[in-house]
Amino acid sequence: GAGADNDLYINQAIVFIEDAIQYRSINHRVDSKSLGLYRWYYSRTCQWILSLTITVILALAFIEEPSSLTVTSDVRYRLPAWNPPCGLTESIELLCFLVFVVDVSVKSYLIGWEEFWKNKWLMAYILMLIVSLADWIVSLSFFCKESVRIRRILRPFFLLQNSSMMKKTLKSINSTLPEMASVVLLLAVHLSLFTMFAMLLFARTKDKQQDKEWVVYFRNLPDSLTSLLVLLTTANNPDVMIPAYSKNRAYSIFFILFTVLGNLFLMNLLTAIIYNQFRGYLLKSVQSSLFRRRLGIRAAFEVLSSLKETPASTQQSCVSVGALLQVLQKAEMDSRCKQAIMRSLKMCSCDQLSAAQFQKLFEELDKDAIKQHPPSPEYQSHFMQKMQFAFGHPCFGYLGNVVALANIISICVVLVIDSDKQPSERDDFFLGAINCFFILYYLLEMLLKILAMGLKRYWSYPSNRFDGLLTVILLILEIATFAVYGFPHPGWRPEFLGLLSLWDMVRLVNMLIVFRFLRIIPNMKFMALVVTTLLDLVKNLRAFAGILVVVFYAFAITGIMLFKGAVVPLGNTRYSNFLQGTQKDSKAEFTGSCVHNCYISRKKKKQNKNVLSWCSAHFQAGVVYCLLYVLSVHLICRWAKIYFVAWWLISSVIWVNLFVALLLENFIHKWDRRCQRESLSGIEYQRTVELMFRDVLEEPTEEELMEKLHQHPHLQLCR
Amino acid sequence: GAGADNDLYINQAIVFIEDAIQYRSINHRVDSKSLGLYRWYYSRTCQWILSLTITVILALAFIEEPSSLTVTSDVRYRLPAWNPPCGLTESIELLCFLVFVVDVSVKSYLIGWEEFWKNKWLMAYILMLIVSLADWIVSLSFFCKESVRIRRILRPFFLLQNSSMMKKTLKSINSTLPEMASVVLLLAVHLSLFTMFAMLLFARTKDKQQDKEWVVYFRNLPDSLTSLLVLLTTANNPDVMIPAYSKNRAYSIFFILFTVLGNLFLMNLLTAIIYNQFRGYLLKSVQSSLFRRRLGIRAAFEVLSSLKETPASTQQSCVSVGALLQVLQKAEMDSRCKQAIMRSLKMCSCDQLSAAQFQKLFEELDKDAIKQHPPSPEYQSHFMQKMQFAFGHPCFGYLGNVVALANIISICVVLVIDSDKQPSERDDFFLGAINCFFILYYLLEMLLKILAMGLKRYWSYPSNRFDGLLTVILLILEIATFAVYGFPHPGWRPEFLGLLSLWDMVRLVNMLIVFRFLRIIPNMKFMALVVTTLLDLVKNLRAFAGILVVVFYAFAITGIMLFKGAVVPLGNTRYSNFLQGTQKDSKAEFTGSCVHNCYISRKKKKQNKNVLSWCSAHFQAGVVYCLLYVLSVHLICRWAKIYFVAWWLISSVIWVNLFVALLLENFIHKWDRRCQRESLSGIEYQRTVELMFRDVLEEPTEEELMEKLHQHPHLQLCR
Repeated sequence: GAGADNDLYINQAIVFIEDAIQYRSINHRVDSKSLGLYRWYYSRTCQWILSLTITVILALAFIEEPSSLTVTSDVRYRLPAWNPPCGLTESIELLCFLVFVVDVSVKSYLIGWEEFWKNKWLMAYILMLIVSLADWIVSLSFFCKESVRIRRILRPFFLLQNSSMMKKTLKSINSTLPEMASVVLLLAVHLSLFTMFAMLLFARTKDKQQDKEWVVYFRNLPDSLTSLLVLLTTANNPDVMIPAYSKNRAYSIFFILFTVLGNLFLMNLLTAIIYNQFRGYLLKSVQSSLFRRRLGIRAAFEVLSSLKETPASTQQSCVSVGALLQVLQKAEMDSRCKQAIMRSLKMCSCDQLSAAQFQKLFEELDKDAIKQHPPSPEYQSHFMQKMQFAFGHPCFGYLGNVVALANIISICVVLVIDSDKQPSERDDFFLGAINCFFILYYLLEMLLKILAMGLKRYWSYPSNRFDGLLTVILLILEIATFAVYGFPHPGWRPEFLGLLSLWDMVRLVNMLIVFRFLRIIPNMKFMALVVTTLLDLVKNLRAFAGILVVVFYAFAITGIMLFKGAVVPLGNTRYSNFLQGTQKDSKAEFTGSCVHNCYISRKKKKQNKNVLSWCSAHFQAGVVYCLLYVLSVHLICRWAKIYFVAWWLISSVIWVNLFVALLLENFIHKWDRRCQRESLSGIEYQRTVELMFRDVLEEPTEEELMEKLHQHPHLQLCR
Repeated sequence: GAGADNDLYINQAIVFIEDAIQYRSINHRVDSKSLGLYRWYYSRTCQWILSLTITVILALAFIEEPSSLTVTSDVRYRLPAWNPPCGLTESIELLCFLVFVVDVSVKSYLIGWEEFWKNKWLMAYILMLIVSLADWIVSLSFFCKESVRIRRILRPFFLLQNSSMMKKTLKSINSTLPEMASVVLLLAVHLSLFTMFAMLLFARTKDKQQDKEWVVYFRNLPDSLTSLLVLLTTANNPDVMIPAYSKNRAYSIFFILFTVLGNLFLMNLLTAIIYNQFRGYLLKSVQSSLFRRRLGIRAAFEVLSSLKETPASTQQSCVSVGALLQVLQKAEMDSRCKQAIMRSLKMCSCDQLSAAQFQKLFEELDKDAIKQHPPSPEYQSHFMQKMQFAFGHPCFGYLGNVVALANIISICVVLVIDSDKQPSERDDFFLGAINCFFILYYLLEMLLKILAMGLKRYWSYPSNRFDGLLTVILLILEIATFAVYGFPHPGWRPEFLGLLSLWDMVRLVNMLIVFRFLRIIPNMKFMALVVTTLLDLVKNLRAFAGILVVVFYAFAITGIMLFKGAVVPLGNTRYSNFLQGTQKDSKAEFTGSCVHNCYISRKKKKQNKNVLSWCSAHFQAGVVYCLLYVLSVHLICRWAKIYFVAWWLISSVIWVNLFVALLLENFIHKWDRRCQRESLSGIEYQRTVELMFRDVLEEPTEEELMEKLHQHPHLQLCR
């Protein structure tokens, strides 16, 4: 009937407007049942459960065998990690898989079968689930003793497929790959030509004293390649040239040429290429988000205009205000926006809205909340007014900064004086006394500011929140210290009591004071600019960070699988035997090549803990931990080389360059705006990327929108 | 009289046109005598003498005491460097100074006294000369035994002041300094806050086993600062965190946070700032060059139009063709340009030239020479024509590339097989035989190509020149080998004869073959693009490279003065005593801090030889060379720290970022053009920066030119 139809249209409009708000695609089923399912699927609870599931399945690696979630990373000292009984992690995994199965079925159903076959991500999702479940069954049938678990490497895929931003970014990276590949090819040619030169230059000679270079770095082809590859990372920079250089200074020309060409030119060329590709990336992605929003609103308009209540006689399609109000009340959106739209709807005198008016109403969504700080309290007393003027003045804030600086300097002085003292010689009185004084000042400052500004106004500034919270924590810590250890007096060196020793308490207080000093940032113009750029960047980088997590996870799991059992702690006696053995052994070179790998890996800082611990173990005691079976080691080292080179290329070279490209893009945009708007008051905090690009974005035209709407696979528009 | 006036005008026009060609300023004296002096001063000989003088005075450092121009850099083995007798370098220096005195007087005279007082560079030049001469006199009066020679640090100034490009670049860098300083300040704040955190986190504890981190890296304030500063260069990357990390994994958060904030954000922010500043740099400098050229031509027009022979009655000023021809014949310019201008002058039917026509004539200067390859010879014989078609075809070139690749692979295989063999076991027969075969093929290829293309056409391609020259050299080397060692046969291992051993000859041949392989570059599109970008970059970087040389020179000389006598070679017996002494000594830490410095300096690759040798000496044998007097060493290490940090900031951070900025600018410009012109034939070699920017340059307007002309300090225009 007409009523049911009308209900359906209203529901469709609600969903389309919610899609517009969330920048979602509107290409989903639009019948009543599906709409209910759709709203349920995108409800906060459901999405939260999905995110939790992804987090849980990724976090499983930390407690699964071989986990390394121990306090120390040193294989000599660490206790065996807790091994969950067989079936515990597996049952958690099964739960997660079930959630994913529900997820993929709902998603597939909602977009419809026709679309499903075009969507490679969904098909890959199903494939991954099937492989994971099969692997899970194999795992259980071996009672968790199987050696290879494929499903662990596949896990990051679930993170990847859940974020449309990440998928988009991946596509973007994918389109840059051919050019990156050409530069990498160029690098490979550079490397191989120079390797041949090196092998010809530093060939074995008859004089054993003279061919140190050959012995250490250019013994054979793999060694030479490794030496030069590591030189490309600058990790072995002067070392590799020293033997040749001390023989003849002219040899340095070879190394300088290699470094300048490879490191200065080719590596930076990679930056240039990636920057060039990503220059328009942010703008493009914001532009497509805008298109989705306009499309969603337009779709809502179209379905509302086909409501039966509208007079069909009018030439132009339009929407009644009543229907829109009905939709607005049911749609989930930011209450501020909702109120603003309602308000302008009421102010609008007309009864019917055209498409343009409808679109205009929802422009409120694009606007940033203009933050209104609550007013200061108005005091009657003349004295209080003066107080309010004095402590509400910016100068009082500057005084606070100066005091914080003085506090930092005093801590620094005490640290310098105490740095070499034994803990037993240390006198905590001085530091305790001055900290007590400063914390009292901070408390006073906070109270006076609250007095001058009123609690609400005080709390509405982020810098005050930061300040106030830290002051309260400091106060609590200080009171706790006094409660446990009494008031400070000369020679104040009490015994260990309670949870933390006095010294630990004082250190904690000092660290918080140093941290509190960051409140000066908004007062320095350039710093504020830099910090806001960085914060913007962090927001824009979420997709990149997600992809990085995916890559890290995959590498870490692969590393665990490849190097399982490679690091074996040896007792000191066995170590020396082993060392003597290897030194006589002609295979002694494997140690060298392992150390080489570690040299490469020195460049890789944020390597996952497991891999890092593997490598740090190597470093820590040089050859102390070495690998038990020479043969297996030789094999492992080869693999390790390839693994680490791949890791270096992806994490260090490509990712860092992507980061630089994004930073350049963000910063230059911001900087230009700053120069334009220097005349306006102070620094503007731009909350969203959309706002940053507002002046360059193009509005989609009516034709584009309508064309896209007519391509909708499920929505049949009347006209 | 009128004739003398006319001569003067003609001479002025000649000089102005020469100024325009060389992009020089026209603000110099314009009377007859001065013009003669001006042309003499800018004649090729005079400028060459000036450049030579600058080169000589800079090169003096390599033979002056303490020079290090020895074959080996190892202080243990190297012979004492040749010390020139007192007075030799000093008299060369005096000669150079005299040339500079002449230079500065001519320059000052030519721009006139009024301009002289505004020109800070000239005044600084005179000041430098006075200081240098005074220092020179002091030096001679001490019979070259004085300890400090200020004039050696001042020398690079002479290089700096001689290049207008370098002065302009310096100005540009100067204007970026405030922003760079803010980022460096931010870095300093970051560093100091984290240092305080580190000192609080890694304080000395009661458990001696547990405070390894404190002992090694965070013992006191300078140590902590150094550790974190070095971490910023990533030189001590995993090492610094390992002791803390092996105690508790959570400590890694501190280091990761520090590295991400400092290295990833702040350092890259510096890149962004510098790139942002230098984005328009190239364009601006090209634009101002264009303005100078147009101004010079306009000035020539103006002086020629005031010649007496032109009819004064005409409203518009114009120039007779005869006068212009007279000027053109006397002016020094590229003969191709001169002919082209003459040709278009003759084609122009009119007798008088307006300003626009005059300007248009000289646009020939802006055009690049269109390279016309000479035609191939035309053979009568049918067979020869077929030959010509076959060997002139690109496929023949590809075949040559394939053969070159095969040669490289064969060399590579032999190298891999021979890599571990003793020199006496090596059989040179195989390599000799295949090289002989390949070189014969190369010779044949060259001859056939010459046959097909004719010698002139063959020689007109740069890739053929490269190829042909290398082939001839290879042939000569091969013939020389056979002449000395006979033809290769199995077991071909002759004794050492002549200049080089057979093995050295073969190595040289192989290196040349590897080098010859670079001829494939123009055949690969992307590689060709990259290489042309790099070549362009090298041209644009000349000014930067000059400034870098200035900085390097100043740092090297300062380093020599600061660390004079710091590296003393010790015998082995004395060394072990010394080592034992220091190990017991409480001052043992100085070694650590010296090693720290070397860690920092590991990042500085292209450091001048002297400094490098100082540092490499440290590295080579660890503590083998150590400094004799503990006290003086402690002082030196402090200085060394400051010196190396300054060096790192300037050479590594700022210069590398400048380089990246320029590369980005160049590459992105080139890349955009490539995409535009993809349809045009092949790769275009853009010869000059002017051409690269031709489509975006703005022509100066008539008013701007005339206003500038009227501001000329010496030229009085009639109107």
